[in-house]
Amino acid sequence: MSRSAPSLPLLNCDMGESFGNWKIGLDEEVMPFVDCANIACGFHASDPSIMRRTVRLAVKHDVRIGAHPAYPDLQGFGRRSMACSPAEVEDMLLYQIGALDGICRAEGTRVQYVKPHGALYNDMAADPTLLRAVMQAVVRYDASLPLMVMATANPAPMQALADEMGITLWFEAFADRAYDSRGHLVSRREPGAVHHDSEVIIAQSVTLARGEALTDSSGGDLVLSADTLCVHGDNAESVAAVRAIREAFDTLAGA
Amino acid sequence: MSRSAPSLPLLNCDMGESFGNWKIGLDEEVMPFVDCANIACGFHASDPSIMRRTVRLAVKHDVRIGAHPAYPDLQGFGRRSMACSPAEVEDMLLYQIGALDGICRAEGTRVQYVKPHGALYNDMAADPTLLRAVMQAVVRYDASLPLMVMATANPAPMQALADEMGITLWFEAFADRAYDSRGHLVSRREPGAVHHDSEVIIAQSVTLARGEALTDSSGGDLVLSADTLCVHGDNAESVAAVRAIREAFDTLAGA
Amino acid sequence: MSRSAPSLPLLNCDMGESFGNWKIGLDEEVMPFVDCANIACGFHASDPSIMRRTVRLAVKHDVRIGAHPAYPDLQGFGRRSMACSPAEVEDMLLYQIGALDGICRAEGTRVQYVKPHGALYNDMAADPTLLRAVMQAVVRYDASLPLMVMATANPAPMQALADEMGITLWFEAFADRAYDSRGHLVSRREPGAVHHDSEVIIAQSVTLARGEALTDSSGGDLVLSADTLCVHGDNAESVAAVRAIREAFDTLAGA
Amino acid sequence: MSRSAPSLPLLNCDMGESFGNWKIGLDEEVMPFVDCANIACGFHASDPSIMRRTVRLAVKHDVRIGAHPAYPDLQGFGRRSMACSPAEVEDMLLYQIGALDGICRAEGTRVQYVKPHGALYNDMAADPTLLRAVMQAVVRYDASLPLMVMATANPAPMQALADEMGITLWFEAFADRAYDSRGHLVSRREPGAVHHDSEVIIAQSVTLARGEALTDSSGGDLVLSADTLCVHGDNAESVAAVRAIREAFDTLAGA
Repeated sequence: MSRSAPSLPLLNCDMGESFGNWKIGLDEEVMPFVDCANIACGFHASDPSIMRRTVRLAVKHDVRIGAHPAYPDLQGFGRRSMACSPAEVEDMLLYQIGALDGICRAEGTRVQYVKPHGALYNDMAADPTLLRAVMQAVVRYDASLPLMVMATANPAPMQALADEMGITLWFEAFADRAYDSRGHLVSRREPGAVHHDSEVIIAQSVTLARGEALTDSSGGDLVLSADTLCVHGDNAESVAAVRAIREAFDTLAGA
Repeated sequence: MSRSAPSLPLLNCDMGESFGNWKIGLDEEVMPFVDCANIACGFHASDPSIMRRTVRLAVKHDVRIGAHPAYPDLQGFGRRSMACSPAEVEDMLLYQIGALDGICRAEGTRVQYVKPHGALYNDMAADPTLLRAVMQAVVRYDASLPLMVMATANPAPMQALADEMGITLWFEAFADRAYDSRGHLVSRREPGAVHHDSEVIIAQSVTLARGEALTDSSGGDLVLSADTLCVHGDNAESVAAVRAIREAFDTLAGA
Repeated sequence: MSRSAPSLPLLNCDMGESFGNWKIGLDEEVMPFVDCANIACGFHASDPSIMRRTVRLAVKHDVRIGAHPAYPDLQGFGRRSMACSPAEVEDMLLYQIGALDGICRAEGTRVQYVKPHGALYNDMAADPTLLRAVMQAVVRYDASLPLMVMATANPAPMQALADEMGITLWFEAFADRAYDSRGHLVSRREPGAVHHDSEVIIAQSVTLARGEALTDSSGGDLVLSADTLCVHGDNAESVAAVRAIREAFDTLAGA
Repeated sequence: MSRSAPSLPLLNCDMGESFGNWKIGLDEEVMPFVDCANIACGFHASDPSIMRRTVRLAVKHDVRIGAHPAYPDLQGFGRRSMACSPAEVEDMLLYQIGALDGICRAEGTRVQYVKPHGALYNDMAADPTLLRAVMQAVVRYDASLPLMVMATANPAPMQALADEMGITLWFEAFADRAYDSRGHLVSRREPGAVHHDSEVIIAQSVTLARGEALTDSSGGDLVLSADTLCVHGDNAESVAAVRAIREAFDTLAGA
């Protein structure tokens, strides 16, 4: 189903983040170049009709569909942490995964993986009880669905929990972000945290795809094992970068 | 799965209509006496955690779980008609059925039928394009799921549309409401529209269960073919009435 | 406060219709050319922080601030009619006018008029009980606030109700829409309903400003007495049209 | 306006926390015995029509009306902390205070004080930037409105900030909660955190009203200077306790 050879990271992109009358993202332009569409489920963005349209677009381009569940916060776009209990998180994930899967069934497809969004994605990386709740939801929905989590220099604890829970992890790295020596993202408040030069972005993508070491923010070597790379379809520049990464990967795959 | 013999109407009841901190309905008291739980899906009432709890309760009592989708209107409890397009209705049904089914999967069960709620239930009875959209959603989600619709004196047009769409209908009658000669409910604004005397309610239930004629509001005979009866768990009186109907049905079944 | 001479219609424009992370409308570009900003109040669009920013922008350009209340329907952008009772409509207007006025107070200004939005605007034109509820809300909030309503060939009935209620009406006409012989807007489904040629739009604005007759859709003369003209800031073309109308009005005023 | 003599703490109670079809709280039973009604503003509970009804009830009993603003979280009843920025908090307070004031104007009254709700109340006590944002909102809305904050053993820092901002504080104590030696509430997770015995509740109220020392959870003396006491109208027992406190206060006032 993916255009990438198994050894190359899958390109994943947030999609379907419009809402009602409001539009965000160049979904139609970027869909042809990605492997995985993280589709918003109505809690931080989207609504049933936008979900339907986005699923249709993913099917047309033979792109894997992932549920992109979030905290219930449209105004804050799911970026504001909320003190939800692990049980609440488990239940809201089941709801959102199921809702997107309901839309998928009408288009002859199914949810194929899960990637939590925004503050929930960050919170589960910091709080093992939330991570366990997220895993619980995915396992109980369908134990064959992979869960995307952030790749770090030390994936062992997360992998151990996943093994215990019986869930597959897809570790995700970022082509356009600087990393510190632990393999955590450098905060956006720091200078140099986000790469804007597309040469740099493409080079980092290729380095990650080859499994070679990045240079971290303190100048050391950092090896991240990445099953998938997060890319963006927000504007023409980011779409062009995705296209360039795809071409670089096609070259790698053909070599 | 149903306690009723095939020839007796199933007792269906709205459930899981609490929301967050707010509680409505004596779900625990009424669940043991019904066959079908119409579970709210978060648009007119409920939230993921209440849905989870309600599904668990239904499973415990071996009660069929139905999705009870609605217009997106928590404040109005789904009772205010909204000018949604047929496409919007189809998509919001897929979303809500899927969401409840996601919760069901975590409890080892599945959605087994669909009953639209409130203003949507009334609007689809009045507008064939909405009815078609509702049927489309159910068929595309899972063509084996029955759809509950209102029994009337002339079910043929609805049945014809259902046959065309390839969907099973369960016709629903009301034990506590007066009917006019077309088999439509007498408006709640009219005197005598709602039966409050439990003797009358039980008698009407038994008449419907036997397939005998009711007396309509103009004094004529009205035969309604009812696959299911709508009952209520709002308060102690309505729960007592459900219990009495169940006992009367047990007697009928044993006869 | 208005840039227009008293005899010229005020130019009013919907503003502040972004929401959270989503942006709609070129508010900053169009604000310098209008007299009245209809500011969304969080029910069909906007949120407290966008309201704050929009009020600030209006104050900066010395533009009158109007509350633009709507049905509670973010997903539908307030364009779907909802069966709300007159009492519910009155209460939701008080809430929204007050909320915007709260934001205004922090910026040293106040709400100066009210214009209902979308489906509510249309519904109140069709249903006198809703119109009365809207007027009731405005009068009870502040009887000195004018209410914008649609100009038609026969404004007498609305004016009579307004006189009875003790409320000032500002009749609104549209520069970019065709009218039928009753002075109602030709449905958008009809060909020619919306003018796209800016020459036509400017000419219609000037005709309305002079109090001269338009040619209605059946070829007859139609005189609309317009206190205000509705203009749009959705895109560069509509902003250019507003600028051109403003220049034409400046010429008229100077003549 | 208050029934209490100036030297007695005002009794304040959360009110109007129903929502749409869902009912919470015995507002009608408890209103006659309190001085201050903290009225929900639609973000954690309530809607415009319930606000209208609650304001009417407060006016009827000559009870002061306070805005009870909260984080935007109906499902969580405003009890889940949300990572909102200080600017967002300021704006959402202006919105909610204004909205309630809009309802008040229709009933011939006005908002007379502000008490943040739930997680926001706790967060502002812990985070001075949030507290400043809350004070900013109240000052900018109407600098004459008092703000309710929690009484502690060391009110000086809060008072200093309030003096700087030019805002009046009303310190609030709890009749039914145990305090630690800093004058903070003992966590509900600890045994003995909540008093259930109405004798104890009434005695603590009288001690606070006389300005005498409570015994804190470590056995020491704790003097809290309380302008107002928080009481509850959730159920018949809590209403009876409020009534008993009112009678005890009437005795104190008459002495």
